[in-house]
Amino acid sequence: MKHTRIIDLLNNTKTLQEVTVKGWVRTFRNNQFIALNDGSTIHNIQCVVDFENTPEETLKRITTSAAICVKGTLVESQGAGQKVEVQVSKIEILGDSDAEKYPIQLRNRPSLEFLREQAHLRVRTNVFGAVMRVRSVLSFAVHKYFQEKGFYYVNTPIITGSDAEGAGEMFQVSALPFDNTPRTEDGKVDYKEDFFGKQTNLTVSGQLEAETYAMALGQVYTFGPTFRAENSNTSRHLAEFWMIEPEVAFNDLAANMDLAEDFIQYVIRYAVENCADDLKFLEGRLLEEEKQKPQAERSEMALLEKLNFVLENNFKRVSYTEAIDILKNSKPNKNKKFQYLIEEWGADLQSEHERFLVEKHFKCPVILFDYPAKIKAFYMRLNDGTEPGRETVRAMDILFPGIGEIVGGSQREERLDVLIEKMHALGIEEEELWWYLDTRRFGTAVHSGFGLGFERLVLFVTGMTNIRDVIPFPRTPQNAEF
Amino acid sequence: MKHTRIIDLLNNTKTLQEVTVKGWVRTFRNNQFIALNDGSTIHNIQCVVDFENTPEETLKRITTSAAICVKGTLVESQGAGQKVEVQVSKIEILGDSDAEKYPIQLRNRPSLEFLREQAHLRVRTNVFGAVMRVRSVLSFAVHKYFQEKGFYYVNTPIITGSDAEGAGEMFQVSALPFDNTPRTEDGKVDYKEDFFGKQTNLTVSGQLEAETYAMALGQVYTFGPTFRAENSNTSRHLAEFWMIEPEVAFNDLAANMDLAEDFIQYVIRYAVENCADDLKFLEGRLLEEEKQKPQAERSEMALLEKLNFVLENNFKRVSYTEAIDILKNSKPNKNKKFQYLIEEWGADLQSEHERFLVEKHFKCPVILFDYPAKIKAFYMRLNDGTEPGRETVRAMDILFPGIGEIVGGSQREERLDVLIEKMHALGIEEEELWWYLDTRRFGTAVHSGFGLGFERLVLFVTGMTNIRDVIPFPRTPQNAEF
Repeated sequence: MKHTRIIDLLNNTKTLQEVTVKGWVRTFRNNQFIALNDGSTIHNIQCVVDFENTPEETLKRITTSAAICVKGTLVESQGAGQKVEVQVSKIEILGDSDAEKYPIQLRNRPSLEFLREQAHLRVRTNVFGAVMRVRSVLSFAVHKYFQEKGFYYVNTPIITGSDAEGAGEMFQVSALPFDNTPRTEDGKVDYKEDFFGKQTNLTVSGQLEAETYAMALGQVYTFGPTFRAENSNTSRHLAEFWMIEPEVAFNDLAANMDLAEDFIQYVIRYAVENCADDLKFLEGRLLEEEKQKPQAERSEMALLEKLNFVLENNFKRVSYTEAIDILKNSKPNKNKKFQYLIEEWGADLQSEHERFLVEKHFKCPVILFDYPAKIKAFYMRLNDGTEPGRETVRAMDILFPGIGEIVGGSQREERLDVLIEKMHALGIEEEELWWYLDTRRFGTAVHSGFGLGFERLVLFVTGMTNIRDVIPFPRTPQNAEF
Repeated sequence: MKHTRIIDLLNNTKTLQEVTVKGWVRTFRNNQFIALNDGSTIHNIQCVVDFENTPEETLKRITTSAAICVKGTLVESQGAGQKVEVQVSKIEILGDSDAEKYPIQLRNRPSLEFLREQAHLRVRTNVFGAVMRVRSVLSFAVHKYFQEKGFYYVNTPIITGSDAEGAGEMFQVSALPFDNTPRTEDGKVDYKEDFFGKQTNLTVSGQLEAETYAMALGQVYTFGPTFRAENSNTSRHLAEFWMIEPEVAFNDLAANMDLAEDFIQYVIRYAVENCADDLKFLEGRLLEEEKQKPQAERSEMALLEKLNFVLENNFKRVSYTEAIDILKNSKPNKNKKFQYLIEEWGADLQSEHERFLVEKHFKCPVILFDYPAKIKAFYMRLNDGTEPGRETVRAMDILFPGIGEIVGGSQREERLDVLIEKMHALGIEEEELWWYLDTRRFGTAVHSGFGLGFERLVLFVTGMTNIRDVIPFPRTPQNAEF
């Protein structure tokens, strides 16, 4: 017996037809009204049970999260809140759910923290169902955007023998017997005996490999998991997260900023247009959450207003040097309210400074560019003609309200000699990156790219506040359950 | 100066316009004809240089893989092989390529084996450019299919603390200092000191986690990297590969087979329709390759014919029991040509048997189903009413000509008591999979899913014969370069 998905039933105006629905019970009121959900939408379909003609034994088993199959007639609903409902003629319990044992007792208003420990069940709640549907739609928007623009998707390696990128602490990967690793004569682990014959790690970025592909296919992007073994227990960091890294031959920094802005606006617009119901629900959730906060800390805009604001306004482009001037002369700097006071050009910006610029000063997404060379990675293009001691690179970071850095990118150093000089200065061996240097040896060209942390984008779009709540099974220090 | 991608130029019929093109030189003939490629398509654009008015110094630098920028007029081509060409008015060398040092000397007809060692440059060849573009288009087709059918994309964890699935040998992940790991009193590695506070591995499958999401969102799919630490140096195995795993609530085995067949046909059709030029080129490559083989070993069909055959014919559905009968009575079994002779029901099928069924007997893709319980995983649904000693499970494998197993799937055991009993029999601790068992405790229902090895699909569609040639940077025993 073919069943119909609830999202299709609710969009159906052809009433009086016989339907079969399968799903999980959300609530059962008055021994009569089942709110049934199948995950296809945030909305439930109301199933009206003829309780006088249904065995008491069956009625008792209609409990929260029980799986049931309902047959009946689709009719116009008399009640408020839904257009159609199902007048039940037959009900079958597919899988029971013991109400006393079910871990998520909605009447106790489970906290988001508690639900993290029930990551396998939390997606049955409205909040997490909505978040994960939005996440899925955003993922698709990422692929759709790039594919329609003629980019090619590249799966860069997850296990890597190169650790030169220096983006952060790495996890090591091994197939050696851990309790009893083979050793070389000087007592070190003998990686020649390991699966790959060398020491290997989990990737922190696919950028360097993606660059080699951009120098052949022209426009490429990655979208895959990346890893940081950093012991940071914050609401913005994960040990395992998904990153999107486009890389484009012949793009300079300005074109790179244009691409990033256009891309972000596209995927947000796609979510707004394709997740209306889930976003409306999440907007309400955020309003509720913010009521707990003092007035001054609440957002000035509701969720959808904030998303539309990003769509309708250009991102503000500000050079690092301008930003330092703004920060130096800002009230919190003068009143010594910043934890790290901005005293001179060259200072690395902290999260408090980024938030000031985005949330207080410009009140919109900001693209900072042309950073001091000293605080940025070796592969970024050195600007020509900057004065000694104040060298800058063609880097850009995009900062979002409430999120902080969402994108980090740059034009890449395409000149072999300059690149090698910078690697030497940082102690990176040429042999380590021979293949990366080959792209500069054979047909080098201006090219640029950026990395976007996907979970930070999902945070922004869903209005959630902890990054652990926007990925199905978060990996953080001391936590690899499931 | 904005440049136009070559794919757009070649589709352009508006001649006599001024254009700018950027790309890499493929060949330079007669000091006059540059074949320029920018990766957007397999086709080059011919750029005709006015060599009498171009400095000798510049002409010398137009070498294979040099990056150049050409300005000129798009005109109808007089030569064969292209509709339009560029009459060059200005040429700029962006990045030189020393012809003597460039590792890929096309005149030496580099082998695929040699090119694997140049994985960062091989994508500049026609073969690998075509393969990687097809791979990208197939990836998009995967997402498009599922999203249009109302499936939600789930990113299951890569680092996992659970090793119960038993699909194969696992890589271990750790942030401990390898040379000097902390130890417990009994001398074992003390994982409490590790990043996650426990022993962790790289995932071999996202299925179990995907099941928890299917039991909430209804229809989900994963598409991400998976890992096997198996020391198999074959043309069909990678240590790191990408897998697609849909999981659907309320689907039984028949619906699961329907989904898999429809899905595979959709993505192949999408590639045929969207990669015509690349596939035509790859078809020619395969024909060339097969000329080296004895007649009897050559494919009966050319590449596109083979793809269309899969699109136009239903997959043959055969039970394991029927397959065993066919194999027992087959010539190679009777003549003892099989390495593993089929003697009785219960035997595990080897690659030679699968190939016989697909390539010799049925000559089409085959879905084998209802396998003996003993040779399949614990989570597969036990068939009701089978005789003792001949218990079967609702498993299915899809076998493809030339590829072997491309899909493995099953209806899942939804009954808590049966599942626990099977886990006990295999020594899998209940505590290890408490969260997985919860899906059977709370609102269990019939559900099914499968896993498709993405690289095997790319192999089939591109007609390549070694799996290392269809992923950008292959990971195999002793090989984690780049």
